[in-house]
Amino acid sequence: MYSYHQLFEFSKKIFLSIGCTETHATLAAKVLLSADLRGIDSHGIARLPGYVRLWEAQRINPKPHIHITYQTPSTAVVDGDSGLGLVVAPHAMQIAIEKAKTCGTGWVAVRNSNHYGIAGYHAMMALEHDMIGISMTNASPLVAPTFSLERLLGTNPIAVAIPAHKEPPFVADFATTTAANGKLEILQRKNSDAPLGWIQDKHGNATTDAHALKNGGALLPLGSDREHGSHKGYCLGSIVDILSSILSGANFGPWVPPFVSFLPLPENPVGKGIGHFFGAMRIDAFRPADEFKSNMDMWIRRFRSARAVDGEKVLIPGDPEREMEMQRMKKGIPLLEPVVKDLNELAQKFGLNF
Amino acid sequence: MYSYHQLFEFSKKIFLSIGCTETHATLAAKVLLSADLRGIDSHGIARLPGYVRLWEAQRINPKPHIHITYQTPSTAVVDGDSGLGLVVAPHAMQIAIEKAKTCGTGWVAVRNSNHYGIAGYHAMMALEHDMIGISMTNASPLVAPTFSLERLLGTNPIAVAIPAHKEPPFVADFATTTAANGKLEILQRKNSDAPLGWIQDKHGNATTDAHALKNGGALLPLGSDREHGSHKGYCLGSIVDILSSILSGANFGPWVPPFVSFLPLPENPVGKGIGHFFGAMRIDAFRPADEFKSNMDMWIRRFRSARAVDGEKVLIPGDPEREMEMQRMKKGIPLLEPVVKDLNELAQKFGLNF
Repeated sequence: MYSYHQLFEFSKKIFLSIGCTETHATLAAKVLLSADLRGIDSHGIARLPGYVRLWEAQRINPKPHIHITYQTPSTAVVDGDSGLGLVVAPHAMQIAIEKAKTCGTGWVAVRNSNHYGIAGYHAMMALEHDMIGISMTNASPLVAPTFSLERLLGTNPIAVAIPAHKEPPFVADFATTTAANGKLEILQRKNSDAPLGWIQDKHGNATTDAHALKNGGALLPLGSDREHGSHKGYCLGSIVDILSSILSGANFGPWVPPFVSFLPLPENPVGKGIGHFFGAMRIDAFRPADEFKSNMDMWIRRFRSARAVDGEKVLIPGDPEREMEMQRMKKGIPLLEPVVKDLNELAQKFGLNF
Repeated sequence: MYSYHQLFEFSKKIFLSIGCTETHATLAAKVLLSADLRGIDSHGIARLPGYVRLWEAQRINPKPHIHITYQTPSTAVVDGDSGLGLVVAPHAMQIAIEKAKTCGTGWVAVRNSNHYGIAGYHAMMALEHDMIGISMTNASPLVAPTFSLERLLGTNPIAVAIPAHKEPPFVADFATTTAANGKLEILQRKNSDAPLGWIQDKHGNATTDAHALKNGGALLPLGSDREHGSHKGYCLGSIVDILSSILSGANFGPWVPPFVSFLPLPENPVGKGIGHFFGAMRIDAFRPADEFKSNMDMWIRRFRSARAVDGEKVLIPGDPEREMEMQRMKKGIPLLEPVVKDLNELAQKFGLNF
């Protein structure tokens, strides 16, 4: 077990080592570690070496000039200047929040960014302002639309955070695929089969081979197949792609740059970097916030107390991650052996201790 | 086959007969028939007798005073005064569009409304203004959240319409369940089995019994079961419910009034009527519209030309409905025998001919 403090300080030092400012390194470490705290291990400190390799490949600018390129009272486009998505995204979300303060809602499309950690972190920034937060991003193409043999979309997550009163907030944060890529990676490491419906092989057939992506296969959109609504998952992933990239001028669809530095950038880019989209809606731009939040409490209590199948209960989106966060903050964060090895190598590279 | 004109005129006369104004009757008929044109037969003229029964049960006010109860530059709450959703919804969407003209985006939550036809109609209103249109509504509880034995959510559809340049627009319009209730009704009429993954029985087990909903069963959220991401479909349906009703002050979750007049209204309502949520985002509040629309053309062409599994092709959301609309406008709209019988009875009731 590693303490949050220990992993935070190490991550921050790494970000300082690649040239980030104190403020940016602190922010990047906080956003990165929020994934480990919330139990989304695939998006946390395990990715730190990946970010460093992107910096080594000169795909990440450690001192970005993050700036608004165009705006109206309720909208803005932000250019991330090839910065860490971990830094660009909270800046952009903050702009959405400021616009919501004066205008009721704020909507910010971002181009020229990189991977931004977990979608939920940015959406949850709205909560303390009594706002609903929305966050989405496109990502490297791993997903085949319904009937496609080609990977044209990323796992393109959506997060929506909604404040309540006495109850904890509603926080949905999910990839628009049947299963997130992180879950597949776990099966690959264990050499286990994947459930049917998560992936297809290069011929577009359902397969349980967790390694099928290496051989021309693809992740499947939420719904798995046409009969079970995969066209709806494909719609969702497409909407995320279009709002994140075509509104902002980022790369879209199969042109989104890969996270791993050993894959080349797509030829003939159609935009700049990867794209995000953020929204903030002030509750009291619609209705007094206390009325809204009391109703949210009622909603949450009614759903949480629903009669459930034996041995299970109805969860409220955000429940498992919040419980994980409390537990890991207290008891520490477990890291897999290969991750520890990677982090030790990273420490050596920069003359640090892990 | 019935001509669009014939069905439109008949529907309009029925709406006039229950007391709608000429303007409202025309609008209601247009919205209702857009479902038949686009091939979503469950939401079209087949429902006309249902709307009339709601009027007979005094749950629909034919002369509503649709009004804004609160607003900011980019938001409004609209009270539909128990009017037809077919009329209330386009009014509210128009307000979102007007706000987007001055403020970049417009967001309208609606309470005290009724069923509003197909979600896509309202989202598509934004297209001619070079805006992205968003439309969603809650609906009578038929859906069990993941692990729930109770039906707490409606099929809660989402529609997003995005303009392109030379290509037709991207129009996604889907229920947040694995299968729409209309598809299940078709199987019930034929006494056919449903695919596993569409519904659960009263014990929460997967079932192929298309009639399971009558015996305590429920529709399943998009994803079907936990392993295939039903918690994500549950998140989506919940987000639609909360934005539509808790932002506006409408009924939510299990308290949403049923569409069928023979079911009683829930006791102790938590709000007014059913709720909708609309958004309009002006493209050029982010980026010059011609740049955006050229990129959309590129997106659409790349996806449409993707290599596909044998005998299939990759469709763009909205393709099938648009083709159906062109065909039915030319060749007419087919109606099932029971629907014709219902419409004849309706005609008799008001001294009209069908």
